[in-house]
Amino acid sequence: MALTHFDAKGDAHMVDVSDKAVTSRMAIAEGWVKMARETFEIISEGRAKKGDVLGVARLAGIMGAKKTSELIPLCHPLPITKVALDLTLDADLPGVRIAATVKTTGQTGVEMEALTAVSTAALTVYDMIKAVDKAMEIGGIRLVLKEGGKSGRYEAP
Amino acid sequence: MALTHFDAKGDAHMVDVSDKAVTSRMAIAEGWVKMARETFEIISEGRAKKGDVLGVARLAGIMGAKKTSELIPLCHPLPITKVALDLTLDADLPGVRIAATVKTTGQTGVEMEALTAVSTAALTVYDMIKAVDKAMEIGGIRLVLKEGGKSGRYEAP
Amino acid sequence: MALTHFDAKGDAHMVDVSDKAVTSRMAIAEGWVKMARETFEIISEGRAKKGDVLGVARLAGIMGAKKTSELIPLCHPLPITKVALDLTLDADLPGVRIAATVKTTGQTGVEMEALTAVSTAALTVYDMIKAVDKAMEIGGIRLVLKEGGKSGRYEAP
Amino acid sequence: MALTHFDAKGDAHMVDVSDKAVTSRMAIAEGWVKMARETFEIISEGRAKKGDVLGVARLAGIMGAKKTSELIPLCHPLPITKVALDLTLDADLPGVRIAATVKTTGQTGVEMEALTAVSTAALTVYDMIKAVDKAMEIGGIRLVLKEGGKSGRYEAP
Amino acid sequence: MALTHFDAKGDAHMVDVSDKAVTSRMAIAEGWVKMARETFEIISEGRAKKGDVLGVARLAGIMGAKKTSELIPLCHPLPITKVALDLTLDADLPGVRIAATVKTTGQTGVEMEALTAVSTAALTVYDMIKAVDKAMEIGGIRLVLKEGGKSGRYEAP
Amino acid sequence: MALTHFDAKGDAHMVDVSDKAVTSRMAIAEGWVKMARETFEIISEGRAKKGDVLGVARLAGIMGAKKTSELIPLCHPLPITKVALDLTLDADLPGVRIAATVKTTGQTGVEMEALTAVSTAALTVYDMIKAVDKAMEIGGIRLVLKEGGKSGRYEAP
Repeated sequence: MALTHFDAKGDAHMVDVSDKAVTSRMAIAEGWVKMARETFEIISEGRAKKGDVLGVARLAGIMGAKKTSELIPLCHPLPITKVALDLTLDADLPGVRIAATVKTTGQTGVEMEALTAVSTAALTVYDMIKAVDKAMEIGGIRLVLKEGGKSGRYEAP
Repeated sequence: MALTHFDAKGDAHMVDVSDKAVTSRMAIAEGWVKMARETFEIISEGRAKKGDVLGVARLAGIMGAKKTSELIPLCHPLPITKVALDLTLDADLPGVRIAATVKTTGQTGVEMEALTAVSTAALTVYDMIKAVDKAMEIGGIRLVLKEGGKSGRYEAP
Repeated sequence: MALTHFDAKGDAHMVDVSDKAVTSRMAIAEGWVKMARETFEIISEGRAKKGDVLGVARLAGIMGAKKTSELIPLCHPLPITKVALDLTLDADLPGVRIAATVKTTGQTGVEMEALTAVSTAALTVYDMIKAVDKAMEIGGIRLVLKEGGKSGRYEAP
Repeated sequence: MALTHFDAKGDAHMVDVSDKAVTSRMAIAEGWVKMARETFEIISEGRAKKGDVLGVARLAGIMGAKKTSELIPLCHPLPITKVALDLTLDADLPGVRIAATVKTTGQTGVEMEALTAVSTAALTVYDMIKAVDKAMEIGGIRLVLKEGGKSGRYEAP
Repeated sequence: MALTHFDAKGDAHMVDVSDKAVTSRMAIAEGWVKMARETFEIISEGRAKKGDVLGVARLAGIMGAKKTSELIPLCHPLPITKVALDLTLDADLPGVRIAATVKTTGQTGVEMEALTAVSTAALTVYDMIKAVDKAMEIGGIRLVLKEGGKSGRYEAP
Repeated sequence: MALTHFDAKGDAHMVDVSDKAVTSRMAIAEGWVKMARETFEIISEGRAKKGDVLGVARLAGIMGAKKTSELIPLCHPLPITKVALDLTLDADLPGVRIAATVKTTGQTGVEMEALTAVSTAALTVYDMIKAVDKAMEIGGIRLVLKEGGKSGRYEAP
């Protein structure tokens, strides 16, 4: 099976989507930032009085989605029509769970935009907390749902 | 303990580093992209003849490091003096392991630059392979080593 | 009344415009830069022989309009189809009056693009003159006209 | 008196600052967004429960400061060492008052960075509220204080 | 004959394309980097074992095409649907020949995108080799083919 | 001889300049845009009354220099301290001759910044004139002079 991002000679190119239909497309991605329990407690309280870590990361994720085609070399620029991020504190992790929903009306899907939104939000959580905990881990980044386009619906198992 | 990215009122700000010394700073971060065994085989062969996935992702990671202060809201812009990415195929994962080394001579550390380089390279690997495997997972993103600056050396346990 | 840029929980998001019609949309914004009379005289003469302040600011405004969705966190990226700036010297102000007209064929309006064009042009006028006058003031930035889209025509009173 | 951003022929150029000393420099700028009283009441309440307009605008201002040299054609890129924005609700305006403080250790001043931070925050306030009030006005944007560099201290009268 | 990028007063503006049809458009541009024979031999061998100059330049060209409307002041932002670069070693030049093909489904042509892709790839070739040869020359950059849009097909003589 | 932008394995990396001295560095590059005689006459007159092609291209070149490290994958970000472009009409070409001078106080040279400034200005000239002449050619882009840094002075033969 061939990788579509390379041509017959094996050279990277931005795939021709000129003939693809302009349809509604949607993708949801998720991920998390795991941290020490004491760190988790600082940001849990923080939400209320010391500073809104999740609010800053949410905004970074939204803006990150808009930068996807600048970051990923072979990604097509897309007129994004919606970006929403859901960041929740999970005491069992312990840490922050992140989910991003992105929509477009275009010729290619928005999986990369949703994954980039999650990654950027996760990096921002890390940045804001790194002064107290450098051992945090970012993981679980994956596509949860994809709708629209010729390849159809994909739902993570 | 307070989070330095918020002031006394709990408002986000870019921390004042004016009085920090300009010193040599270095950071190494790592992460991975896990995939199905058949996918792994496609890109393993591909390296030789069908297209250089790792080469494209390496370059994306280098360019991503330079975009760190645009992506992470409270990050300081920094004159990066070195970026190197090491991408290796790991048949046991199975998937791609990514490590990024970033250096600067500046007033703040380059942890975020190294982590952003790894994330961008991982997203690029995902992008180039997603046509054959949508169930890949990005994870294990963490700081491995940090040197220079007042907070001193950090090595992941 | 609710602010559309926040969801039911009060979290910021980029509003879903997927179901909005792709229509012709237009917006005009205006603003000014007020300065000391002697400063005004320098740039009035300057236009002819010492350097075209208004020409540089006009171009900055056009390029600024294209950066709107990078600057305003919850703005949708839009395929701008026209940007024109009108900068005029007003001896009564004294200073520079700026008007920007922006058009698109898209799913959301271009008010922010027109306002960003005006702001960027005003900042550029300030930058080019600040060596001789630091007390300039930028003001009067507002939407003058908006056409197209479901919310219909708006004309400033 | 000549404008430094133009050479002897009247052509725009980025001024040579190679021989300027690398010193600590600081600038404070201010501005406001004026709105209808009912609009003011919506965002005043909103801060508590419906969505944090000021928090989003603060972040936009910080990120806007980092984009200054991309927006203003003849501005030098600078290693910003601090950005802080203060946004306050003023019932007498009625509206939002914005102040930005920017620092660098570099060869040119950060007046433009402070003014760009204020402008970007003001545009973001406008964007988030425009669904309920299109007649808002942005104004009063000016330099309040400037320290460091050969031209010395400037304080607005 | 008038230049369309200036209005009746001679002021630069971004031309109004609101009423142009959304059609398939394509452009091909070409150029070259000429170098000393010994330099040519280094990169010819290099392709196999010392580093893939052409692969890096190809990617830079693809990403450069996406930056066209940021670089060229009066260019419209466009939803690019394809970018492919062909870089070949030409022993007779001696040097590297570059051709770029860009497509869109939009309201304006993609000549500038194709030319920007070629220029960025050429600059990247120069950058990677400049340590061994500073006397290289970039030239022959021109439009080869243009299809779609009201002005019709253009083929270089 | 090895290319410094690749490591021992042949992988691209951003060269480590941490140990290079921070010194004054300067580079001058040049290039041209050749056009039909009738086109040349339009822009020659135009300078006076129909629109300042050279003024727009000069500004694009200055802004392009600031984007160099975003365009060229392995370029280090640099605090540019000066950019000046000289565009002249050459009736013998016929066309526009472009020269760019860039300075920095940093750890690497500014050859790429000067070459990028020339290329961006040349593309902008092409863009503004392409409605009347699609057969223009951009060429003669080369480094004229380089000073500062360990490799010393280079002057084009």
